[in-house]
Amino acid sequence: MTTIPGPHDLAKTNRIFEKDVSEKGDYSALERVYTKDARALPPGAETVHGRENIQAFWKQAVAAMGIKSAKLSTVDVQAFGDILIEEGRAELSVSGTDARVNVKYIVVWRQEGGAWKWHVDIWNAVQ
Amino acid sequence: MTTIPGPHDLAKTNRIFEKDVSEKGDYSALERVYTKDARALPPGAETVHGRENIQAFWKQAVAAMGIKSAKLSTVDVQAFGDILIEEGRAELSVSGTDARVNVKYIVVWRQEGGAWKWHVDIWNAVQ
Repeated sequence: MTTIPGPHDLAKTNRIFEKDVSEKGDYSALERVYTKDARALPPGAETVHGRENIQAFWKQAVAAMGIKSAKLSTVDVQAFGDILIEEGRAELSVSGTDARVNVKYIVVWRQEGGAWKWHVDIWNAVQ
Repeated sequence: MTTIPGPHDLAKTNRIFEKDVSEKGDYSALERVYTKDARALPPGAETVHGRENIQAFWKQAVAAMGIKSAKLSTVDVQAFGDILIEEGRAELSVSGTDARVNVKYIVVWRQEGGAWKWHVDIWNAVQ
């Protein structure tokens, strides 16, 4: 039987992405965020398969976009059997501008080794 | 017990979107494509909630973009309990150009009234 996590469990993983990855640049922390065979579907690029490739993707994307921080907010969570579907918003701070980039996303969550992680991650611009 | 559909069942629904909706402009056919409380997350816009609003969205989006046809291809399907996660590609033909617009998408499928339909639909550009 799968234990459905509360908002706190999702928030814990999302904080790893905010603090360790986007602010501190610790891409090894993505091991605690994405499942091993996760997929990420960034706008303007092909699908990225597997956690190692996703780590490489974020490393170059943060540098290329000059991302200084990312703030994730959960809008809605639906549980289906042993997965969760999260809809959320990300607010990105980017170097050289005070403007924020607003993104909306869908993340499919799955348990791996007892922890809830991102199994499918796709996003696009709000405006 | 949920019956997991084969590729043929998904293809049947996807063909409704291709033929009835994008080619013939029959937006009432979206009742057979999206669940009643579906969500669509188009790039460059806010999330669209509910089938009626999604019908209105597609009507204006097809007109605004000059979409003549859409060809959907399933890349991958994963079943989780009573839902399916489809990754796919859409090739859009647009008025006034021979160029194709290539899109990748994630659709969460759910059963409604015995039929498999799109419950969450999000996409972004490939390039």
